Amino acid sequence: MTTEIQHDIEDEALARQRLRLWLQMLKAVRYVEGTLRERLRAGYETTLPRFDVLAALHANPEGMKMSELSHHLVVSNGNVTGVVDRLVSEGLAERENMATDRRAFLVRITEKGRTLMDEMTAEHLRWIDEMFDDVSEADAARGISIMLDIRQKD
Amino acid sequence: MTTEIQHDIEDEALARQRLRLWLQMLKAVRYVEGTLRERLRAGYETTLPRFDVLAALHANPEGMKMSELSHHLVVSNGNVTGVVDRLVSEGLAERENMATDRRAFLVRITEKGRTLMDEMTAEHLRWIDEMFDDVSEADAARGISIMLDIRQKD
Repeated sequence: MTTEIQHDIEDEALARQRLRLWLQMLKAVRYVEGTLRERLRAGYETTLPRFDVLAALHANPEGMKMSELSHHLVVSNGNVTGVVDRLVSEGLAERENMATDRRAFLVRITEKGRTLMDEMTAEHLRWIDEMFDDVSEADAARGISIMLDIRQKD
Repeated sequence: MTTEIQHDIEDEALARQRLRLWLQMLKAVRYVEGTLRERLRAGYETTLPRFDVLAALHANPEGMKMSELSHHLVVSNGNVTGVVDRLVSEGLAERENMATDRRAFLVRITEKGRTLMDEMTAEHLRWIDEMFDDVSEADAARGISIMLDIRQKD
């Protein structure tokens, strides 16, 4: 067998191993997301998009524009307007008209929203820790570096 | 500092590292899915749900029930009926009534669908290989094992 053919076979094996990694990443992410979705629903009667919006508002206490929130939600495929409406009606967030453009407004987390989010964030950390129980510190570090390698390849 | 407090701090650091891994997994999966979506659209005028349904039909040449296909599609959030309708209208799949239940039918891939899927599968493998270019064989193997560890924790 020539070296070139040998290389092709090795390249093919590596490509298939990378595909296997990709499929396992998909399965793991779906498993974790499914579990989080279920626990948020059971524990807080909340959905992933709601959790994501409240988390974004919590991280930006000065308030966010709807367009900024939409960008965040690309992620969980949610309907931002609907999510914000519900958060406002439950007193977890509030809208404030902007001085510069009276048709535009900022959405800001309330004290009640902050308290709830602090609690959910702590729970979320515990849920992930539990699901990742078999992942050692070294594996977590290696895993993070592999995930970054994938995205840096553009 | 007592040993117990020391342990708590280490546990907390590990929990945060696992959370970091989870967030990086999410980002990597979204990056890869976004790229695949874009390439399927540009190269084949097709969507991820369409690709997933055709891949499932390709893997089950004897045909599949709609309920089995729906199960596959939980994954890509697609509307199975709409996807199947379009595949049939393009001659990539066909419906066949079942002998046992005349209201039920099997969906089966056609020769044309098989040819297209073979081509897309080869391209898909190349795309993943390219995006995972920085991931060595050892990293891929370790990554697969980490992903399996996460799911085995039930």
